[in-house]
Amino acid sequence: MPFAFPWTALVTMIAVFVFFWTGIQVARARAKYGIKAPAISGNPDFERVFRVQANTGEQLLQFLPGLWLFAVWFGDLWAAAIGVVWPIGRIIYAITYSKAAEKRGPGFGLTVLPTLILAIGAVVGIMMRLF
Amino acid sequence: MPFAFPWTALVTMIAVFVFFWTGIQVARARAKYGIKAPAISGNPDFERVFRVQANTGEQLLQFLPGLWLFAVWFGDLWAAAIGVVWPIGRIIYAITYSKAAEKRGPGFGLTVLPTLILAIGAVVGIMMRLF
Amino acid sequence: MPFAFPWTALVTMIAVFVFFWTGIQVARARAKYGIKAPAISGNPDFERVFRVQANTGEQLLQFLPGLWLFAVWFGDLWAAAIGVVWPIGRIIYAITYSKAAEKRGPGFGLTVLPTLILAIGAVVGIMMRLF
Repeated sequence: MPFAFPWTALVTMIAVFVFFWTGIQVARARAKYGIKAPAISGNPDFERVFRVQANTGEQLLQFLPGLWLFAVWFGDLWAAAIGVVWPIGRIIYAITYSKAAEKRGPGFGLTVLPTLILAIGAVVGIMMRLF
Repeated sequence: MPFAFPWTALVTMIAVFVFFWTGIQVARARAKYGIKAPAISGNPDFERVFRVQANTGEQLLQFLPGLWLFAVWFGDLWAAAIGVVWPIGRIIYAITYSKAAEKRGPGFGLTVLPTLILAIGAVVGIMMRLF
Repeated sequence: MPFAFPWTALVTMIAVFVFFWTGIQVARARAKYGIKAPAISGNPDFERVFRVQANTGEQLLQFLPGLWLFAVWFGDLWAAAIGVVWPIGRIIYAITYSKAAEKRGPGFGLTVLPTLILAIGAVVGIMMRLF
């Protein structure tokens, strides 16, 4: 039996690589701004890059369960088509927030939107299965 | 073939929504206490709300693998019945910890307990399958 | 149908328990160095233990998707054989970083290495399935 969710799997791995990339930015920002581990504060320029990574982890954790449970009920292609907005939004978020905290809104919204659609869709699918 | 884990999926999404809600509380606390991003400290009232969200993410990450692997061996209903304690414990944790750090114990215990039962059960199931 | 990924499941739970253990170390370090919640800074000895736990969570989140999607295409035993390096690397990371920030490199590398191999392998598997 072939694996039924290749596109959902691809979106998952793209999202994981975006998260990995935000971690590389933190390491670069540590060197650039002279913030040595274990410190995580002391320079707002560093702190914004640090918060991009932390927030991306939190958002990834909220995104993946809904993505996969949406795929179970609405199919691989729909889940992936909605889910692919997440890494795009996150890259925008990372670039804009690294420059200025006030600019982080649109990229943030663009990752929360697919997360919420997939999560609500997953709950609808679960309810249709149960009742 | 119908999806065999609808209740486990429902508990998963409830837990994800509780985590999402703790994030909304952080945004509200930023506004209320005037802690602008990227700062994550400066006011203990804000910091407690912030720690609720961070800790809930960490706990969710520990909870979900055990929940699902428990479900594989002991069935959907048992996993969900034990797992549903997690979001209840987290809501208690969020409310009490937001008020005072000393009060966070019971809610914390009530989320760690199902996590540990499910994790240990998952290991038992894996061992029965392997040996 | 017996569950096809018992070794991958075992590595998953070992990794989750290692993460759980890093959280216990934070609680012990809070007591030892007198850093009361919600504070997460104030003593570099505490901060290193705290960063071990935070970083382990981030790394676990990056590790698990690749581990499982690698297992789907390359089988349970290969995924587990590569993946078991992760908890070993993390224990080395926790012990060395707790002592001195400069010593954290090897343990960090030893967790990122299996994560990257599994992630790249997962993408290769997905591509072979899709095209």
